[in-house]
Amino acid sequence: MLIVMNHTASQADIDKVIEVVSGMGFTAAPIPGGERTAIGVLGNKGYVDDSTIRDLPGVQQAIHVSKPYKLVSRDFHPDNTIVDVAGVKIGEGERPVVVGGPCAVESEEQILKTARFVKQCGADLLRGGAFKPRTGPHTFQGLREEGLKLLAKARAATGLPIVTEVMSPDNVALVAEYADLLQVGARNMQNFDLLRELGRIRKPILLKRGMSATIEEFLAAAEYILAEGNDQVILCERGIRTFETATRNTLDLAMVPLVKELTHLPVMVDPSHATGKRSLVTPMSKAALVAGAHGVLVEVHPEPEKALSDGPQSLTFPGFEALMADLRRLQQCLACCDIAP
Amino acid sequence: MLIVMNHTASQADIDKVIEVVSGMGFTAAPIPGGERTAIGVLGNKGYVDDSTIRDLPGVQQAIHVSKPYKLVSRDFHPDNTIVDVAGVKIGEGERPVVVGGPCAVESEEQILKTARFVKQCGADLLRGGAFKPRTGPHTFQGLREEGLKLLAKARAATGLPIVTEVMSPDNVALVAEYADLLQVGARNMQNFDLLRELGRIRKPILLKRGMSATIEEFLAAAEYILAEGNDQVILCERGIRTFETATRNTLDLAMVPLVKELTHLPVMVDPSHATGKRSLVTPMSKAALVAGAHGVLVEVHPEPEKALSDGPQSLTFPGFEALMADLRRLQQCLACCDIAP
Amino acid sequence: MLIVMNHTASQADIDKVIEVVSGMGFTAAPIPGGERTAIGVLGNKGYVDDSTIRDLPGVQQAIHVSKPYKLVSRDFHPDNTIVDVAGVKIGEGERPVVVGGPCAVESEEQILKTARFVKQCGADLLRGGAFKPRTGPHTFQGLREEGLKLLAKARAATGLPIVTEVMSPDNVALVAEYADLLQVGARNMQNFDLLRELGRIRKPILLKRGMSATIEEFLAAAEYILAEGNDQVILCERGIRTFETATRNTLDLAMVPLVKELTHLPVMVDPSHATGKRSLVTPMSKAALVAGAHGVLVEVHPEPEKALSDGPQSLTFPGFEALMADLRRLQQCLACCDIAP
Amino acid sequence: MLIVMNHTASQADIDKVIEVVSGMGFTAAPIPGGERTAIGVLGNKGYVDDSTIRDLPGVQQAIHVSKPYKLVSRDFHPDNTIVDVAGVKIGEGERPVVVGGPCAVESEEQILKTARFVKQCGADLLRGGAFKPRTGPHTFQGLREEGLKLLAKARAATGLPIVTEVMSPDNVALVAEYADLLQVGARNMQNFDLLRELGRIRKPILLKRGMSATIEEFLAAAEYILAEGNDQVILCERGIRTFETATRNTLDLAMVPLVKELTHLPVMVDPSHATGKRSLVTPMSKAALVAGAHGVLVEVHPEPEKALSDGPQSLTFPGFEALMADLRRLQQCLACCDIAP
Repeated sequence: MLIVMNHTASQADIDKVIEVVSGMGFTAAPIPGGERTAIGVLGNKGYVDDSTIRDLPGVQQAIHVSKPYKLVSRDFHPDNTIVDVAGVKIGEGERPVVVGGPCAVESEEQILKTARFVKQCGADLLRGGAFKPRTGPHTFQGLREEGLKLLAKARAATGLPIVTEVMSPDNVALVAEYADLLQVGARNMQNFDLLRELGRIRKPILLKRGMSATIEEFLAAAEYILAEGNDQVILCERGIRTFETATRNTLDLAMVPLVKELTHLPVMVDPSHATGKRSLVTPMSKAALVAGAHGVLVEVHPEPEKALSDGPQSLTFPGFEALMADLRRLQQCLACCDIAP
Repeated sequence: MLIVMNHTASQADIDKVIEVVSGMGFTAAPIPGGERTAIGVLGNKGYVDDSTIRDLPGVQQAIHVSKPYKLVSRDFHPDNTIVDVAGVKIGEGERPVVVGGPCAVESEEQILKTARFVKQCGADLLRGGAFKPRTGPHTFQGLREEGLKLLAKARAATGLPIVTEVMSPDNVALVAEYADLLQVGARNMQNFDLLRELGRIRKPILLKRGMSATIEEFLAAAEYILAEGNDQVILCERGIRTFETATRNTLDLAMVPLVKELTHLPVMVDPSHATGKRSLVTPMSKAALVAGAHGVLVEVHPEPEKALSDGPQSLTFPGFEALMADLRRLQQCLACCDIAP
Repeated sequence: MLIVMNHTASQADIDKVIEVVSGMGFTAAPIPGGERTAIGVLGNKGYVDDSTIRDLPGVQQAIHVSKPYKLVSRDFHPDNTIVDVAGVKIGEGERPVVVGGPCAVESEEQILKTARFVKQCGADLLRGGAFKPRTGPHTFQGLREEGLKLLAKARAATGLPIVTEVMSPDNVALVAEYADLLQVGARNMQNFDLLRELGRIRKPILLKRGMSATIEEFLAAAEYILAEGNDQVILCERGIRTFETATRNTLDLAMVPLVKELTHLPVMVDPSHATGKRSLVTPMSKAALVAGAHGVLVEVHPEPEKALSDGPQSLTFPGFEALMADLRRLQQCLACCDIAP
Repeated sequence: MLIVMNHTASQADIDKVIEVVSGMGFTAAPIPGGERTAIGVLGNKGYVDDSTIRDLPGVQQAIHVSKPYKLVSRDFHPDNTIVDVAGVKIGEGERPVVVGGPCAVESEEQILKTARFVKQCGADLLRGGAFKPRTGPHTFQGLREEGLKLLAKARAATGLPIVTEVMSPDNVALVAEYADLLQVGARNMQNFDLLRELGRIRKPILLKRGMSATIEEFLAAAEYILAEGNDQVILCERGIRTFETATRNTLDLAMVPLVKELTHLPVMVDPSHATGKRSLVTPMSKAALVAGAHGVLVEVHPEPEKALSDGPQSLTFPGFEALMADLRRLQQCLACCDIAP
C-alpha cells in the first residue's frame, strides 16, 4: 500500500501515519517528493484494510497495490486450471465448449426435445434453469425440484452433463444432487453465504459476473469459493450494466484476454444474456472464441415465441444448428491456420 | 404494452402479432402510422412478459406501459405507509429519523459506548452489522450471532431499537429474534429467496438499493416482500455505481422525491456508504432531509481509525454530535418556516 | 508517481525502470515489499505522463499521485475565488444566486416576459440559449445571433445580467459581446480549442460538467481556461450519465462539498437538466443550497407545453414563484439558525 | 409516439392531450386499456419533439417510436454505403482494412519510420494525430499544421492515405487539405458545429463514438453530417465509459452487428483506445473482424516507451507485424471456410 499525504501535511501528521502503520506490524517507508510526501507500506503479505489509515490527519489517499484475492491469482498460481465437468474438460488448451439449452426448464417435452437437438448439433453440455431469479414476483419463477428432475431425465436421454443455477445456500445440496456444474447467477455473485457453501462441495461451479461487478470484485468472489477448498471454478462474462440500453447489457469481451492474464481459472462467455437479442448471439459467440474464451453458453428454445422467459434472446433450432456449424468451421480454421486465440 | 412494427413489416407479420396477442387472452389494437404500424395490447391487468412477442417477424420493439410492481405503487395505493419500528414511526408526515452506529459490531465496549453516545445525541435507532458482506474472504466477516447479542445488550442499555443486516434466508429467523428492523444489503437486493422469506415475517424491513439497480428494479424487489404479506418496508438509497470514483458510490438524491411520487413506502438515505468520505456525510444528510427523505443512516465509530471496516466514512463522536445539532436546527427551521421538504 | 512491479519482475526489470525514471530527470526510490517491489518517483513538480513507464517489462501499474490540474487546485490556491458577473458576486461567503430563464430564446415576447417575471420573483441572472446543441439535426437549433440580441433587450429591460451558451471557438467573440457569463455546455466540456479561447477573454465562464466526466477531468477542463489567464470560472454540476433512466441524468450532488474541498472556484447546480422532470427541480434546488452550492440554474418558461425544447423540465411561472419563495425562506432559516451549508 | 396516461387521468385530461396532438397536425388514437389509457400519435413523418405533450396533466410518459435520425437509417436506405478513402474501399463486402500509426505525430523520423513499417506489413491507411485533445493543458498537444505536413510526407513516401483528427470547425479546411479521411474524436462526437462543417466538405469522415454516447445518439451525430450532404461517413467504436477501470474503456463489440442492422454506413473498431492495454489489442482486433467490423484502427509506435501519448496501448513494430500476420491468416480462413462474419 502507498499512502499519499496532502501537500500541506505536517511532519507530525507524517509521524503519526508511520506510527499507526508500525502498530499494524508493517514497515513504513516515507518517500519525500517535490510537492508532497508519500509513505510506502511494506511487509504485508496480502490485502490490507486501509480503514485504519485513510482518515488520519493529512492523508490524501491510500492506494492499494495488493489485490483482495490470491488463490485465484495467476501471479501466485501460474498454471492453468482445467475444470472437469463430468468428463468434459474446460480451460486453456482444451477445445472450447458450447453449452446450449433453454433459459428455463418448462416441461418434459420442451427440455427433452431441446437436449436431443443440441446434442445432435454437437453441444457439450445442456443448460436449463429450474430456480429462476426474476425481477418481479408476478412472473414465472421456475419449476424448482421438478425442473431438476426433468434435467436429469434429459441427461439420461442424451448423455449431456447439465448446468443449472442455484440461488440460495440451503438449496446447494439439492441442486448438487442433480447438476454436473452449478451456476451462480449474476445477481448472486456477491451472495457470500452461497459462495462459501459452494466452496465446500465437490462439484464444479460456473460463476457469472455480477451486473456491476469490476473484474477485481469478480475475482474476489471466486476467491470465496477457492478459500473453502473448491478450485473447480469457471468464470463467466455475461455483460455488464452501462448507460447503453440498445442491448440488454454491454458485453465486456476484452475482459476475456485480460482475465486470462490475471487468473488461472477458465473463462466462458454468455452472449445471450449479454446482448438480449437473437441476431447478435452468433457474431458474439464467434468473437468470444476468437478472443480466447474457453466456451460459450447459448440459449436455445424449440419455440422462442412461446418461451416463459428470455424468448427474444433464444436461438431457434435452425439458428442453433447454424451457429454450431459456424463455430465448428471457425475452430477448424483457427486450428489449421495455427492462430492462437 | 405497445408493439412497434418495422417500417418494412408486411400485413402478414401484423396479422401474426395480432393472432399471438389474442392467443394470450388480450386484445390487439393496430394503429397504422405514416411510416409504420404499432399495435396496442389491451386488457392486461399487469405486467406482460413480452418474450412471446418481441421476436415475431417484423416486430421492432415491445414497449411496456405497465410496471413489474403493483402493491408498492402509489398509483394503486395512494395513502402513505408509515412503518413502525418498535414504536418509532417512519414515513411521510413523521419527524425524520436518524439511525446511528458503527458499520460492524466489533466488541461489547465499542457497541455499548456508541449506543449510549448516539442515544445521548438524540438518535432514534441504533445500527450495527453482525453479518458482514465483504468483497474478499480474507477480511473481517462480522461477529455473527455474538454480534446480535451485543446489539440486544446495547438496546437494553439505551432503549434504542436496533437495525442489522440479514444476508441469507436461513438466518432470517435468527436475526428477526434480535433485530427491530432487518436490513437487506445492496448486494442482496435481488436475493429473491431472502426477500420472500422476509415477506413472511412480521418485522419491518429496510431494503437497500442495489449498486446497479434501477428505480424500477428497486420497487420490484420491494414488491417481492409485499407480495408475501409484509408491507412494513422502508426503501433506502445508498448510492449507485457509476464511472465516478472520487466518491465510493454516486448518491442519487433525486430518487427521493421521485420514489415518493411512485410509491407509498418511506424512503431513507445512507450518506455514509453513498459517499465513503466522512466530510461529505453531514452536507449530504442535510440535503437528504431537505429533499424529503424520511430519515438518514449514518455510521459512527468511537475510533474510526481503528474500525475493522468502513472507517473513513464513519463519523467520530464529535462529528456525530455536530451532525445531530445541525439536523435538529435544520428541522426546527424547516418546521418554523413551514417549508415542506 | 508510484510504479508497482509484478510479483515476478526481475532485478533487471527494476533497474531498467530506475534508469528510465532517472532519464526523465526524476529520482527513483525503490521500495522492496513482501511480495513485490514498488518504485516511488520523486522530484516531479506536476503530472507526469506515464506512457514512458507503464509498458516497461515487469511493470504492473503506474499510480498517479499528482493531478492533471494545479491552478484550479485548492492545495495550491487556498483562498476562495469569487466570480463577479456584472456586479453579481458568486462564490463562498456570498449569498447563493438563482439563474432563471428558458432553455432556448424563442421570441422577443417569450424572453422579455420571462425576464420580467424572474426578475420580479428575485432571480439574480437570466439564462437563455441562443446557440442550442441538439442530439439530432432535425430539431430547433436556436435563434443564434438574433437570440443574443433578444437577450440583450431583456437585460436592458430588467437589469439582469445574462448567461448564454457558446458552442464554438469562432463564436466566442460574438457571444462575449452580448453575454455577461458565457456558458460551456456539457457536450463541450472537453472542446479544448473552445476552452483555450475562453481563457483569453475577460468575461466569466460557467463550465458545465460533461455527461461522463469524472471530477478530475472536470477540474482539468477548468485548468485549460485558467492556464490561458482567465480565473473567473464557475463549475456547474448538471447530472451525469448512468444506467438509471428514470431521471434524465443522475444529479451527483455529493460532488458539491467534494469539489469545494478540491478547488477554490465556485460551484453551481442545474437541477433542471440533471433531473429532466419539473417536479424534482424544487426539492433538488433546496438540497443543492443546503449541500453548499453557490447557486442554482433553473429553467422557466411561460408555457412549458409549447417550449421548443426541454419543456418537461421547465418550471411554469407559478412554479418558479413558489421555488423562489421556498429558497428565500430556506436561506433566511439557514442564516438565522446559523447552519453553515 | 405513444402517450401513456396515468391510472388516475380523467377524461378531460385525455381530451386535452388529443386536442394538443391534433393542434400539432397529427392524429391521436386513444387506446383504452384495463388499467389506463394510452394514446397513439399517428401521421408524423419523423421524430416529434415531445416537450409539448409530456407535461400535460395526467400524462405519465411519452414513448418515441420514431428515431432522431433518418438518412443514416437502414430502414430508409437499405443498401450498404461503401466509403472510398483515396481509392481504399471500406464497407460491407469489401476486405476489412487496417489503419496503423502512432497516436500522435511526434517527429519526421518517427512518422516516416512508422509509415514505412506499417505499409510493409500490409496496412491500408496511416493514422497519426496532429491536433491532440488531452485531458489537461500541461501535456503535449500535438504538432498541429507541422504534423499535417509530416503526414503528407509520409503519404508521399509510402502511398498510404492518411487519417487524422480535426478538433474545431475553423480547422476543417486546413485539415481537409492534407487528410484523406478526417477523424472526429470521441470528445467531439456532439460538437455539432464541427459536424455540420464536415457535412459540407467532400472528404470522407471517421466519426468516433462518444465516451458516453448511446448508439441512438451516435447515429444522430452521423445524421448531422449526412444532413449537410456528405454521406461518406464511417462509424468507429472506441469503447464506452463504464464503472470498470481495469481497461481504459469498455469495448462494446456487440454494437458492431447491431449497428450494421440499423445503418448502411461502415463500422470500424479501435481496440487501442477501447482497451488501453497493448496485450489486449490483438485479441480484440481479431474479435472485431469476426464480429463483422469493416476495419480496425491500431496504434503503433517505434518506441512506445518514449511515446508522448498513449504509449501503453501502442503496439511495438514486432507486435504490429505479428498482428498483421494473424489478421491475414484469419481473413484467409474466414474466406476459405466461407464464414460470413
